[in-house]
Amino acid sequence: MPKERISIDMDDVMTDAVGRFIDLYQQKFNEDLSALRNPGSTLQNTVPPDRLAAVMQFPHQKEFFKDLPIKEGCQEVIRQLQEKYDIYVVTAAMEFELCFTDKFNWLKEHLPFIPWTNLVFCGHKSIICTEYLIDDAERNLKSFTGTPLVFTAPNNAHLTEYTRFNTWQDVAAYFLK
Amino acid sequence: MPKERISIDMDDVMTDAVGRFIDLYQQKFNEDLSALRNPGSTLQNTVPPDRLAAVMQFPHQKEFFKDLPIKEGCQEVIRQLQEKYDIYVVTAAMEFELCFTDKFNWLKEHLPFIPWTNLVFCGHKSIICTEYLIDDAERNLKSFTGTPLVFTAPNNAHLTEYTRFNTWQDVAAYFLK
Repeated sequence: MPKERISIDMDDVMTDAVGRFIDLYQQKFNEDLSALRNPGSTLQNTVPPDRLAAVMQFPHQKEFFKDLPIKEGCQEVIRQLQEKYDIYVVTAAMEFELCFTDKFNWLKEHLPFIPWTNLVFCGHKSIICTEYLIDDAERNLKSFTGTPLVFTAPNNAHLTEYTRFNTWQDVAAYFLK
Repeated sequence: MPKERISIDMDDVMTDAVGRFIDLYQQKFNEDLSALRNPGSTLQNTVPPDRLAAVMQFPHQKEFFKDLPIKEGCQEVIRQLQEKYDIYVVTAAMEFELCFTDKFNWLKEHLPFIPWTNLVFCGHKSIICTEYLIDDAERNLKSFTGTPLVFTAPNNAHLTEYTRFNTWQDVAAYFLK
């Protein structure tokens, strides 16, 4: 029997992209944006309106995605998952045309055991057919045809219709029980 | 009713990648490799064995995919298809890590009317679920769960089990009849 397939998002699932926003905000405006980590926070409801356009541009800048910190347990759990499942990394990279090499290098460094055949840089994830998707973004979970699973991030605190993972240990408990 | 979705491969479907191999071979070995265009030709049965490893490296070099010529009719037909179908560009870019920007820029230049949401750089195409796939590679057609459609390239002359397109006019005739 073929292994079941799990698609896993990168930003704010594997990586701490919220932290990068906070760092860049500190650099640019010399102010703290740690409130972006609070449940329910989005750029739209946290950043002052006159700065929002500039902050929305951060991920379009060179190196936004370079060397992002990896979340605790991510590497170990994905390595364990790979023994029982086919793991695909599926990231909406096409929105940020300067991110390709940084994302690819990040994957080579942190998840070198996932082969190139299982990496996907895409836009809409609605055309990805795997049994599971672990993602933080409502739009991706909503359009997914398999089992959508939400990985907790500030901007998805309102979602109640999906099984929720707060940590990578939760992911392990769900799939490796 | 939602539009049906067509995934379309890039290399040797939209672009003349075979021509790039011939050009680079001429540059490197000062010999003609036009035989690579003959039906049934592959690198393996056309390039002398002692040069094969070097030629297989060509697409891993910087700029192999830069400014590849577009096939006749490709742009016009895709523009017409887009009125009736959701068009996705699905290319196995992950095999060649230096190709991302060149491929992305090629798409911006030649098919600017396809939004980033509909671009996919991937490895295995077996996880792509659209109604149709137009591709030249047997491995992609074989694992596809919708209707696979072969676009003629030298290395797929032996395939008889798929509807075949020799030109972009054939694609138009099939979808826009």
